[in-house]
Amino acid sequence: MYNFTLSIPTKLHFGKGQAAMLGKDIAAYTNRVLMVYGGGSVKRNGAYDDVCATLKENGIEWVELGGIASNPKIESVYEGIKLCRENDLGGIVAVGGGSSIDCAKAIAGNVHFEGDAWDAIMKGRPQTDKILPVFAVLTLAATGSEMNRNAVISNMELNIKTAFCDDVLIPVSAVMDPTYSYSVPAYYTAAGVVDIMSHTFENYFSRETDGYAHDRMAEGALIACIQQGPVAVNDPTNYAARAAMMYVSPWVINGITRAGKSCGWSCHPIEHELSAYYDVCHGAGLAVVTPSWMRHILSDATVDKFVEYGVNVWKIDANLDKYEIANTAIDKTEEFFRSIGMPTTLRELGIDNKDLFDEMAGNLANSLGNAYVAMGKDDVLAILEAAF
Amino acid sequence: MYNFTLSIPTKLHFGKGQAAMLGKDIAAYTNRVLMVYGGGSVKRNGAYDDVCATLKENGIEWVELGGIASNPKIESVYEGIKLCRENDLGGIVAVGGGSSIDCAKAIAGNVHFEGDAWDAIMKGRPQTDKILPVFAVLTLAATGSEMNRNAVISNMELNIKTAFCDDVLIPVSAVMDPTYSYSVPAYYTAAGVVDIMSHTFENYFSRETDGYAHDRMAEGALIACIQQGPVAVNDPTNYAARAAMMYVSPWVINGITRAGKSCGWSCHPIEHELSAYYDVCHGAGLAVVTPSWMRHILSDATVDKFVEYGVNVWKIDANLDKYEIANTAIDKTEEFFRSIGMPTTLRELGIDNKDLFDEMAGNLANSLGNAYVAMGKDDVLAILEAAF
Repeated sequence: MYNFTLSIPTKLHFGKGQAAMLGKDIAAYTNRVLMVYGGGSVKRNGAYDDVCATLKENGIEWVELGGIASNPKIESVYEGIKLCRENDLGGIVAVGGGSSIDCAKAIAGNVHFEGDAWDAIMKGRPQTDKILPVFAVLTLAATGSEMNRNAVISNMELNIKTAFCDDVLIPVSAVMDPTYSYSVPAYYTAAGVVDIMSHTFENYFSRETDGYAHDRMAEGALIACIQQGPVAVNDPTNYAARAAMMYVSPWVINGITRAGKSCGWSCHPIEHELSAYYDVCHGAGLAVVTPSWMRHILSDATVDKFVEYGVNVWKIDANLDKYEIANTAIDKTEEFFRSIGMPTTLRELGIDNKDLFDEMAGNLANSLGNAYVAMGKDDVLAILEAAF
Repeated sequence: MYNFTLSIPTKLHFGKGQAAMLGKDIAAYTNRVLMVYGGGSVKRNGAYDDVCATLKENGIEWVELGGIASNPKIESVYEGIKLCRENDLGGIVAVGGGSSIDCAKAIAGNVHFEGDAWDAIMKGRPQTDKILPVFAVLTLAATGSEMNRNAVISNMELNIKTAFCDDVLIPVSAVMDPTYSYSVPAYYTAAGVVDIMSHTFENYFSRETDGYAHDRMAEGALIACIQQGPVAVNDPTNYAARAAMMYVSPWVINGITRAGKSCGWSCHPIEHELSAYYDVCHGAGLAVVTPSWMRHILSDATVDKFVEYGVNVWKIDANLDKYEIANTAIDKTEEFFRSIGMPTTLRELGIDNKDLFDEMAGNLANSLGNAYVAMGKDDVLAILEAAF
């Protein structure tokens, strides 16, 4: 384990009706905000009305930026920056899933940046010290963006999906009302479950083998996903299952199971290529990439970690042969994704030819050297081929 | 699950040498602090010297209050308040385990209170809005006080050990350097492991049965204690084991596995009676009380939770009879405590007669109605009798 500093300052308001708590938090910073959201779902699930009510009650005026797409695009960021500047807004409220929250962060980090926002995003972090405070109202459990420092923004013209990260982007407060996620369709609910599990995997499979407290808590989070994810998918108004998925999502990515681990991530960068070229659903892309990646990196150097995963998470008999445990664990992971309706091949994602494999793998040729198992272009190609 | 607001603002600096980060954090608040510590161990394990170095480097002057006893006493709180007032100090650095940190919190919450500090403590929370910032340098993994809102103070004259809690008492930053705990004797290391497990139990055994994410992460924390606790006890300079115990300690008590659960605690109040009358080591007292409490409350109403505990934490065969699983889980808990050198009877704690049982149970007659299983005086008496 490496030394680390960990800070999780977001104030979390959890439960039915908790959006009412938000206005007071915002009023401590500003009385003029940008409200960022996606499609019409936030108007159907009640989140929009609840946020309007708490803003009004606390004397906060707002300007709206709706229509944020999944894999939020740089064009929306530009639009939000313009609205903030024109209307002299002092904060941003994101209402939705990770896309709206990520978009809000990218806007917040660039309103007071005099250069081009895409340049700052490509540099990976804000290029100004003056950041607008972000407040998040979550309607879909997946990215953990509501309590972390990351935003991921896509530029479809350049086929780039890239991360923009800094502690200053961590939301000031977050509302998690599980009832808002009742109307999330099964497919996106399942994609969220996969995303949460993938965030856990990205840190669990680590070169540091001594993160015992981290890894046992990570296993608990994975088990919660495996137990309650299918309930949320099949029984969408089950409060406890929706609550479990919302509650577990931030803790596997806001640092608790990651801090002190040095590895770069593996599956997310590969999936980001798929999203950047094909605009696929992020969680669905991860469901395709993850089992293929696991099989590709399974070796004498990694088998013990897979055994730990298989025995502790999937309760596979610890007395079996190591590789049998490891392969069974990977098979079970893939079967689980299928069981909740996720694709596990690229063809199912709608990618029916290999034309861009070389280009996508080439983009990652030099960026996965720090992953759990270092990978080059050939590794990415092999993972995509096996997932086809 | 109940609605809740959760905030964990403490900035955690984790790892060898991380005390060097503290001075800068303190300097943002004050340049004059009270340094609170226990016996000579902080001078032997390097923590004292490291804190002095970071204070000097950041131009911070300090006054010392050493000699804080375990089960910190109200007299030390009075002394600290006096030192802060006489020397116009603007913050408190606690160096040690939970006792020093708890004492620092009680001082911090009363320096600007014009009334008597014990009166405020008996009211359960600060009676003034002006609280000094607290900074914690942890040398012993146990109470989680370094990242939570609680302090427990004893008044041996009145035989009262009571909690003083508020969000304003949460430390601003905490240093966890696992090497500081290398010199903690096996007995106190083990007592810390029991304390961490007990904090987990107090929330895990809850009337709310739908805290799926909470409970799976709690089980992970318990497994980490069971796996790495004995390593820390038997191989005291094992960095990874010391790190795991330090790291897991705050998360089971700072809210993540508790938020949204309504129950009051069970074993801690009973142990606080033992400490208040006999000044026993808190973790050792919990090792005695916990298995006895578990056996006392096992019933048709609770057996399913014990089955969950037994199967998920102790890996007991889920196909066995429910009560067999539950009783085996309790036996294994008790055996585990014994295996790390903890007492499991009151006699081993040095309490060799029952003279005060009635008085201690009487003190709790009306305060455990909100526990996981509501208890009255007779229940406490039965638990003490069975633990004798």
